[in-house]
Amino acid sequence: MAGSTFGTIFKITTWGESHGKALGVVVDGCPAGLPLCEEDIQVYLDRRKPGTSAITTQRKEDDSIEILSGVFEGKTTGTPISMMVRNTSQISKDYGNIATSYRPGHADYTFDQKYGFRDYRGGGRSSGRETIGRVAAGAIAAKLLGQMGIRVQAYTRAIGPIEISADPAQFDAEAILSTPTAMPDKVANEKALAYLEEARQNCDSVGGCMECLVTGLPAGIGDPVFEKLDANLAKAIMSIGAVKAVEIGDGIEASRHKGSENNDPFRTANGQIRKTTNHSGGTLGGISDGDTLRIRAYVKPTPSIYQPQQTVTNTGEEIELTIKGRHDPIIVPRAVVVMECMTALTILDAMMINMSARVDYMVDFYTR
Amino acid sequence: MAGSTFGTIFKITTWGESHGKALGVVVDGCPAGLPLCEEDIQVYLDRRKPGTSAITTQRKEDDSIEILSGVFEGKTTGTPISMMVRNTSQISKDYGNIATSYRPGHADYTFDQKYGFRDYRGGGRSSGRETIGRVAAGAIAAKLLGQMGIRVQAYTRAIGPIEISADPAQFDAEAILSTPTAMPDKVANEKALAYLEEARQNCDSVGGCMECLVTGLPAGIGDPVFEKLDANLAKAIMSIGAVKAVEIGDGIEASRHKGSENNDPFRTANGQIRKTTNHSGGTLGGISDGDTLRIRAYVKPTPSIYQPQQTVTNTGEEIELTIKGRHDPIIVPRAVVVMECMTALTILDAMMINMSARVDYMVDFYTR
Amino acid sequence: MAGSTFGTIFKITTWGESHGKALGVVVDGCPAGLPLCEEDIQVYLDRRKPGTSAITTQRKEDDSIEILSGVFEGKTTGTPISMMVRNTSQISKDYGNIATSYRPGHADYTFDQKYGFRDYRGGGRSSGRETIGRVAAGAIAAKLLGQMGIRVQAYTRAIGPIEISADPAQFDAEAILSTPTAMPDKVANEKALAYLEEARQNCDSVGGCMECLVTGLPAGIGDPVFEKLDANLAKAIMSIGAVKAVEIGDGIEASRHKGSENNDPFRTANGQIRKTTNHSGGTLGGISDGDTLRIRAYVKPTPSIYQPQQTVTNTGEEIELTIKGRHDPIIVPRAVVVMECMTALTILDAMMINMSARVDYMVDFYTR
Amino acid sequence: MAGSTFGTIFKITTWGESHGKALGVVVDGCPAGLPLCEEDIQVYLDRRKPGTSAITTQRKEDDSIEILSGVFEGKTTGTPISMMVRNTSQISKDYGNIATSYRPGHADYTFDQKYGFRDYRGGGRSSGRETIGRVAAGAIAAKLLGQMGIRVQAYTRAIGPIEISADPAQFDAEAILSTPTAMPDKVANEKALAYLEEARQNCDSVGGCMECLVTGLPAGIGDPVFEKLDANLAKAIMSIGAVKAVEIGDGIEASRHKGSENNDPFRTANGQIRKTTNHSGGTLGGISDGDTLRIRAYVKPTPSIYQPQQTVTNTGEEIELTIKGRHDPIIVPRAVVVMECMTALTILDAMMINMSARVDYMVDFYTR
Repeated sequence: MAGSTFGTIFKITTWGESHGKALGVVVDGCPAGLPLCEEDIQVYLDRRKPGTSAITTQRKEDDSIEILSGVFEGKTTGTPISMMVRNTSQISKDYGNIATSYRPGHADYTFDQKYGFRDYRGGGRSSGRETIGRVAAGAIAAKLLGQMGIRVQAYTRAIGPIEISADPAQFDAEAILSTPTAMPDKVANEKALAYLEEARQNCDSVGGCMECLVTGLPAGIGDPVFEKLDANLAKAIMSIGAVKAVEIGDGIEASRHKGSENNDPFRTANGQIRKTTNHSGGTLGGISDGDTLRIRAYVKPTPSIYQPQQTVTNTGEEIELTIKGRHDPIIVPRAVVVMECMTALTILDAMMINMSARVDYMVDFYTR
Repeated sequence: MAGSTFGTIFKITTWGESHGKALGVVVDGCPAGLPLCEEDIQVYLDRRKPGTSAITTQRKEDDSIEILSGVFEGKTTGTPISMMVRNTSQISKDYGNIATSYRPGHADYTFDQKYGFRDYRGGGRSSGRETIGRVAAGAIAAKLLGQMGIRVQAYTRAIGPIEISADPAQFDAEAILSTPTAMPDKVANEKALAYLEEARQNCDSVGGCMECLVTGLPAGIGDPVFEKLDANLAKAIMSIGAVKAVEIGDGIEASRHKGSENNDPFRTANGQIRKTTNHSGGTLGGISDGDTLRIRAYVKPTPSIYQPQQTVTNTGEEIELTIKGRHDPIIVPRAVVVMECMTALTILDAMMINMSARVDYMVDFYTR
Repeated sequence: MAGSTFGTIFKITTWGESHGKALGVVVDGCPAGLPLCEEDIQVYLDRRKPGTSAITTQRKEDDSIEILSGVFEGKTTGTPISMMVRNTSQISKDYGNIATSYRPGHADYTFDQKYGFRDYRGGGRSSGRETIGRVAAGAIAAKLLGQMGIRVQAYTRAIGPIEISADPAQFDAEAILSTPTAMPDKVANEKALAYLEEARQNCDSVGGCMECLVTGLPAGIGDPVFEKLDANLAKAIMSIGAVKAVEIGDGIEASRHKGSENNDPFRTANGQIRKTTNHSGGTLGGISDGDTLRIRAYVKPTPSIYQPQQTVTNTGEEIELTIKGRHDPIIVPRAVVVMECMTALTILDAMMINMSARVDYMVDFYTR
Repeated sequence: MAGSTFGTIFKITTWGESHGKALGVVVDGCPAGLPLCEEDIQVYLDRRKPGTSAITTQRKEDDSIEILSGVFEGKTTGTPISMMVRNTSQISKDYGNIATSYRPGHADYTFDQKYGFRDYRGGGRSSGRETIGRVAAGAIAAKLLGQMGIRVQAYTRAIGPIEISADPAQFDAEAILSTPTAMPDKVANEKALAYLEEARQNCDSVGGCMECLVTGLPAGIGDPVFEKLDANLAKAIMSIGAVKAVEIGDGIEASRHKGSENNDPFRTANGQIRKTTNHSGGTLGGISDGDTLRIRAYVKPTPSIYQPQQTVTNTGEEIELTIKGRHDPIIVPRAVVVMECMTALTILDAMMINMSARVDYMVDFYTR
């Protein structure tokens, strides 16, 4: 299967290739009655749109969303919401050696091995443009979570060696939306831009780290065994192209600490049970603990670089390949909104499933 | 839902609590014709059995497996394979304050928030004994993979600060099975044992890292978008209790490298297309690339420690809790086989799904 | 896959063969807090138990249920409920020609074609004993539905040409449980018994019809397209061995009526919107309409008959086969409880999924 | 959830409303390498297109299909195939009383109960136009089945009391495509047209029966328990709006026969094992037996009739409603291709899943 469906109840199916006619998503299982218009989606898509700064590809795309179904009189109807973005800036150039050779770090070779051939234009289905559908769907999930007081916010934590040190609780969220790097710290943003410029001049690319925080999530969401909230988040985030590692809470650091350091004590504050620290990152035993959910993702450097690289053709001939075209020197800043959206989708689905966790919940619901 | 089912075609459903009557698993979708006996399963279960060394809980359990269905005349029939281990060493002591208070780092609080109450005996469903079903099922998956020349091998890479430096290609695989730490390096094993002993004397616990390697996997397995092989592995591994981070290939290191360093060049060797390095860890674009699959998991320190800890009761009263009972000072050595099994299950399922990836595959299959 | 899992949130996985060690089921996703004991299950299992009358197989099985997990202090915990029945009366006779020949009307040939071989003892996985797991799971679903005022009741409507004429609203439900035929009409029961006795003396078998009624189901349950409530019921019921047709409401009769006859007018009674007739059988557009749900299933005659039959061996040799062993002359009376259970499972799952159908439902639930 | 996804590996997701902008489907999991163009789809869609004869709605729609993704250089790529039909003939009239009242026999009331409100224009999501996505997807499935020698053919078997008597093996398949009724018998077609004309003059509507035959299907397809081939077909067919009953093989007739009449003897012909009769309708124990698959569906009369009907408004006020607009006096002729498509989708998915049914299949496949 092509594996383009995600979620159990809030279920999304994405489609489309980089240089095909269009890309889109069908959102099935969205509850009825959510006010929704194209602008709600567009603000999310604009955060991943290319061509907005020196550090993104110069491909110009409006990425203008059209809602085709599932909304009536300004509200979701409960039926599938189909959304589409037309491709407008596919450059119909000669793809020559891309068509018959394997770019290092890309999915060209593996697609050929799996499917026997591939749509090689701009990466086809394995292009970053595949995330358009994720983001359009995630914008709906985030809006619905917002109605329950839950906020999902991702940001760029590191670009190469330049890392944010600030406490997320303190930084200015607006900077995430306004800086080209999506860093919430303007000094770090400047350093990162300089670092990227240097890489670009060397015909090279850079990796980085992004973090997503979820606040307002009630305790009790997620399931104990295979459907742990953190396991589903790990899948959701690792499914974003180029992500190579996922941490929950203290992540790797936790594995280097003692139990006495890593355990979060429980206390009572204002009549509420709360942890005094949050090493766990908001989940215990796969179930949300009421604290801020904290997930980090580490992204490899863009595989498309402008240096000559050693590779082979699809007949096994060894060649030197120089990639042309339009590519971001770093993936992270445009992937931040994708991480946010995948997180929102995962949490919302878990919350829907959780509604039948107790007999008293069901009896209350159906005997109101 | 309780989320106890894993897999699409090779589907397993685990059940059981630490101090209930039994634990087990139903394996549905195992192909017919695999030679299988209880001993095939038992050797895997023995690797996670408690009481075998100073660094595991002193609870004594035979963990003796019984196959109840799905095998006839020594071969799997294609119908569900139900397997069970009876609990024999539940100590029916007074669980007193465990029943009504929340152990830091455990799922006690989150279970109560989700379900309204919990089976508090020995951690109930969130005990490490939950993995018995995973291991019994994984033993079958691993055997079937073996028939196709695919080998899945996990080992302990780090315990606290003690880390293996050897190249996995070189180390003695037998040591993994024979050392108490499951480290393939006897010197590191000794150091780690000393480190653990010290932690234990301090009434503390320790975390660590484990790595799983898969060799012999053909290129082309996995799917491009949400069902990426690495995404499914991330979920599978993160669903193991206490795992807080997952890396594929170079993982976090990749995010700190330049594209020119991280890309793996393709070359031709003996008529075969091969990467000259394996930073990718065996997958490109979510699909296996024919190289060794390499996944790391980072495990938090055992939350059960023998020091007094601050916590609250289920009515919110603040107390000092001292945990009794039998607990491992580190989780990693017994989790290594669990990681191996979750990896085997994930890969086998992806291989089954992959069989219909091409029209020519299907036509060949059905018109033989 | 073996296809032994049913349901999306309330998910059951059955296992076991007719002459294996045991049969059972894992129920995953049962809400926490349902009072449950083995007796709750046993009363349902006793309704399908063999050896209770002249018209069932004379195989003696206690079919005594054991709950192995998921219940603590008399209530479900939300974790998987594993239940098992040990086989005790497998007769280890010489299965000789059954092993190598194909009984007409049975799954022997198709199992061999699919799996390459089969557990031929007593039909293996395709035996009627496979339904033990369905019934044990369905008993839990029915109990939970009962707490919401929903009642699921099936009965035998026809045995051969002997058909119940009474209006279901009028007949004595106790008769369903007390007559050997599970008919709610004692006169019809007597006629049917005579008819069955005649068939048995002729070494033949008989088919029939069963109907299931669900009362108390609120309007709004089920989904509009592929997951229509009636579509899922059709699958659930058709998955019971030997069922060859399923009708919803007036079924085939509806197809012979005019629209003006078949449409159910809406009226208002006591401030409630109600249909004045129920040709629809309680669903419109795949969603429950608040009226009694009405499903009929038609069951073929037992394929095991004591007359010589023409068939072939697994090498294609033509033979005359005479079946021995213990077989029911009719399947319907023991299948009635299976139909009831499959209906309960289907409805409960749909009700769980429905809880997130509206934004206001979700917001109310999570911001209480 | 809205339940708009169907299939396990060959997975389709449909979307769209009768009077929305467009309707469509995403086909995920189609194997790579199938030659495909819009004309392949269009010939199927044209069979359900309105306005083609006196017995279909006079709404004029081209129903012109656009393939948006998943096809490259004339072949499927293995990635999602998104297809869309723009609505062009929505008449933006005053929907007045339809918006606020409940048409008998329609889903208006149940949608309001489930979702709180509905897109009332032309039936919204519960319109027959919902099947456009099913047919577009099914056309692909049927083409792929054709490459394996499997043919799926449905036809109209009865319209009101006018029933085909001919043996399907004998009738002219071309007549199915050329008669307005989709009956393979021109005499019956004429009688049925006269009957429909009479009903239409009486402002009434008519039901009927359709049958689907599958030839060339190998034995061994389908699974033994919940995923029986006939169970999945029952769901697939019952999910088509207005279908009220499904029969497999002899269906209800089988339930009235003796075992000695209903069992199909096995014989050997030309070295092949074959049944001498086909009462079973091509499946035994849920698995295909190599014979013609035979499924019947019974369809209720169109609920939209031009007579005044009693109903209520959404506030419970009793009214007399007269439906306007454009409606078919019978659903069956245009549903025949929908039945064909749902059958093709179900069978293809089962064949994909079946490829891993045996260890030797897998080992052969992966060690070629």
